[in-house]
Amino acid sequence: MNAIDKLYKKAKEQSPVCVGLDTRVDYFPEYLANADLPLNEKLFEFNKKIIDATINEAGCYKVQVACYEAHGLSGMAAYSRTLKYIREKGAIVIADVKRGDIASTASEYARGHFTGDFEADFITINTYMGEDAISPYYPYLEEGKGIFALVKTSNKSGADIQNLISSGKPVYEHMAKLVSNWGKRFIGSSGFSSIGAVMGLTYPEEYEKVQSTMPSTFLLIPGYGAQGGTGRDIARFFNNGIRGAVNSSRGIISAHKGKDESESFADLAAQAVADMKEDILKWL
Amino acid sequence: MNAIDKLYKKAKEQSPVCVGLDTRVDYFPEYLANADLPLNEKLFEFNKKIIDATINEAGCYKVQVACYEAHGLSGMAAYSRTLKYIREKGAIVIADVKRGDIASTASEYARGHFTGDFEADFITINTYMGEDAISPYYPYLEEGKGIFALVKTSNKSGADIQNLISSGKPVYEHMAKLVSNWGKRFIGSSGFSSIGAVMGLTYPEEYEKVQSTMPSTFLLIPGYGAQGGTGRDIARFFNNGIRGAVNSSRGIISAHKGKDESESFADLAAQAVADMKEDILKWL
Repeated sequence: MNAIDKLYKKAKEQSPVCVGLDTRVDYFPEYLANADLPLNEKLFEFNKKIIDATINEAGCYKVQVACYEAHGLSGMAAYSRTLKYIREKGAIVIADVKRGDIASTASEYARGHFTGDFEADFITINTYMGEDAISPYYPYLEEGKGIFALVKTSNKSGADIQNLISSGKPVYEHMAKLVSNWGKRFIGSSGFSSIGAVMGLTYPEEYEKVQSTMPSTFLLIPGYGAQGGTGRDIARFFNNGIRGAVNSSRGIISAHKGKDESESFADLAAQAVADMKEDILKWL
Repeated sequence: MNAIDKLYKKAKEQSPVCVGLDTRVDYFPEYLANADLPLNEKLFEFNKKIIDATINEAGCYKVQVACYEAHGLSGMAAYSRTLKYIREKGAIVIADVKRGDIASTASEYARGHFTGDFEADFITINTYMGEDAISPYYPYLEEGKGIFALVKTSNKSGADIQNLISSGKPVYEHMAKLVSNWGKRFIGSSGFSSIGAVMGLTYPEEYEKVQSTMPSTFLLIPGYGAQGGTGRDIARFFNNGIRGAVNSSRGIISAHKGKDESESFADLAAQAVADMKEDILKWL
């Protein structure tokens, strides 16, 4: 099954919650911080506990590569193990890499993130460089992989460029249309395309404006919780049913801080996922 | 000395040529392709030979991380060794990572690419997400590191977004102005800012339009040679003196293919750098 059809099924039948593994050293519970282990083992151990605790409640996982690149080769080893572990468990992993390059360089990124040590089901990409920044991934989409392209991000200064008005429409609306058009040849049995879009939750009214231009575009929605988005906001994205995965990171993976610093810390992550799921579903 | 002042000095006194280490397995000369070495050793050996041969002719090196990510952990080990080797030799390295994320995530990228295993002098970034995508790097700029932000890329479909017209000006011109303004607090003794811009060589007339809005912005110019740009085009960027580094990859690092497949292959890279330098300087 295509990654997008699998993700849609999981989001609908299990949960639209995407657990963001933006793992930072200061999230480690005390038992782990004090353990006599190398950093990459600690990073992986932390993620494994979170994954094991949330696997039945979460719809998918998003792994933020920056948090691993920050620790060099050791961090990248933990990144690789985390992706493999999620996939071995039969869950879906979105690598949040936001790569943005063109032609043969993008082909190298595609190989790097869709095969081998860093293989993911989906990756996020940045298409400021236009179609050349996405077409090298097409051969992998044909084999079932998926992409989320940045359309409208959840941060305030995203407006610097994304909200410039051109021909009466903001840049993000032009981007939405491009993304929707590129995705037309990759629509799966779920009705959604293997090319999805990142749409920040902090601006639901902006999604409402572009919704009709992207009828087959599944969404990756950052901004829940720590960034201010609520379940009620999400209802404005899901007015015709679930059509996206809603990411939360800090709110889930640091839920234990100051409450449970023991080996059972991840139970609080599981609780946070269950609470978030309820908060989303009650408005639908 | 700040990285930008050092780069300006090198570009002016030694050469504006930037050697692009977009190293691919099919560039290996036969002796290396057939050697009984693991892939990461081959990648590093290739780069080391190129660096040793070009160190006195090149102004700087640009390492394309995608070509190393493509090979997973082994590739990243070769990437790390390559950056370290260039810096040990006293040369300047630009990590072409085009990272683009915000806030605490961008801080993780900054740590990853300005310290530790992947430490570079400059990195390229993508600011489609606005100022939040660049401000987390400021503490490192204060310590002497540098950035090149994407303004106008060298590929045709870069126009999809970058050439949309807003308030009478294309998006890349808005981006040029943002980049120039962000850079104002980081102007070094050379008169150039630690925040530079990527400006594709394939569109010199577009640079002429934005030139006056970015008087203190040093340029990283891709598109020479294999992508169609010529020394004559570069003269339009350098009409007031050298104000950028001109990158070429394939034209330099695969110059030996079919000509010299032995251990002396990199002599042809050195020749290609010398030819390129001459081609640029004769028009100034």
